[in-house]
Amino acid sequence: MIKTIAFDADDTLWINETIFTSTREKIERIISAYETTKPLEDTLYETEIKNLKIFGYGIKGFILSTIETCIEITDGRISSEEIHQIVELGKEMLKHPVQILPYVENTLKTLKSNFQLMIITKGDLFDQESKIARSGLADYFNFIEVVSEKKPKNYRDTLRKYGIDTKEFLMIGNSLKSDILPISEIGGKAIHIPFHTTWEFEKVATAITVKQNYETLSSMKNLVKLIEQITK
Amino acid sequence: MIKTIAFDADDTLWINETIFTSTREKIERIISAYETTKPLEDTLYETEIKNLKIFGYGIKGFILSTIETCIEITDGRISSEEIHQIVELGKEMLKHPVQILPYVENTLKTLKSNFQLMIITKGDLFDQESKIARSGLADYFNFIEVVSEKKPKNYRDTLRKYGIDTKEFLMIGNSLKSDILPISEIGGKAIHIPFHTTWEFEKVATAITVKQNYETLSSMKNLVKLIEQITK
Repeated sequence: MIKTIAFDADDTLWINETIFTSTREKIERIISAYETTKPLEDTLYETEIKNLKIFGYGIKGFILSTIETCIEITDGRISSEEIHQIVELGKEMLKHPVQILPYVENTLKTLKSNFQLMIITKGDLFDQESKIARSGLADYFNFIEVVSEKKPKNYRDTLRKYGIDTKEFLMIGNSLKSDILPISEIGGKAIHIPFHTTWEFEKVATAITVKQNYETLSSMKNLVKLIEQITK
Repeated sequence: MIKTIAFDADDTLWINETIFTSTREKIERIISAYETTKPLEDTLYETEIKNLKIFGYGIKGFILSTIETCIEITDGRISSEEIHQIVELGKEMLKHPVQILPYVENTLKTLKSNFQLMIITKGDLFDQESKIARSGLADYFNFIEVVSEKKPKNYRDTLRKYGIDTKEFLMIGNSLKSDILPISEIGGKAIHIPFHTTWEFEKVATAITVKQNYETLSSMKNLVKLIEQITK
């Protein structure tokens, strides 16, 4: 019944959100020399959301939003040398080693023999391709699709592009908002594997999720077993 | 014989390079208050090339490289307010109205009835999708593919993905390096329509092109006629 299994990448196959969190902490240390008009975390989040329709998702947009925010909350007192440090922190994020999450590789190895496997990931094309290449996992996947958004329409377009029947499709990911709810909406199956940290923007109210039909696992440890049950 | 025609987007369907050039001129005016250690244009180009394997192509990477370059050549004297202006120039670039090149829309209208049409464009996924949407041209195309690079491998992968035979494929674009030579290399046909300005990085030595088999047009005016000749 299920022929294709698609995985989200960031915080599903490998660690991502914690790289953003630790960079933000480094930037907090950089600007700690100044009295700031507002706290970095909240203002940065507001700036990111405001800029999302111009920059899209990804590290480069995050760094541009961070520069903008730091100039704003230090009232322009941040030095160009410190801004340069922020650009360099962005480069470090983009070159950060890809840390595969537990049980991922064995799970992919097992599933590959029975299913067509895909990555469907949101964000910056260049950065996502670079991480997929550096992860060493690329060969497990039949198709890799980087999308600019994960709305029901993007999933519908992607499944049509690869000739995949929604009823034969299973999505696995850490974000209810991006990986689970849109799949429920188009009539596909989904398994939610939360990551310990969720970006504010990806959070959804519990009330929205109660009526949805999806399974939840705490890690990939029991994923193969759960898929066997679903497909029996 | 030709079934699918693919178009590059930037500087083939719409104006792009001149937006970069005019932004660079605005940034030259911003830093003209400072004595610079090196000229902006050359240093920026060096920084962009150095950062290409970290940032990829596109406006966000260009702006980050520009910030880095301006800090370097003003010896850190550029103010955070001026850096903020550079970020805002980047946003203006990303929101810039899409200016379709002459003859494009009529050409697409005519070709659509006889061929499967595609866009194959390089760069930032979010920005490219936004431009395609704002161009009003999306409906002429059966497929739109944003790639991170335009090497022979990227074209081969894309054609395989859509089940297109290289011998039945024609590529049209302004860049010899990205749109024409890789297609010659994989055995496809290509038509070169140069744009009046070429980014330094896309330039190729004449010696490389002399043995290649492709046609050249000065605009899209006679494209339909040339395609009729090729496919006769």
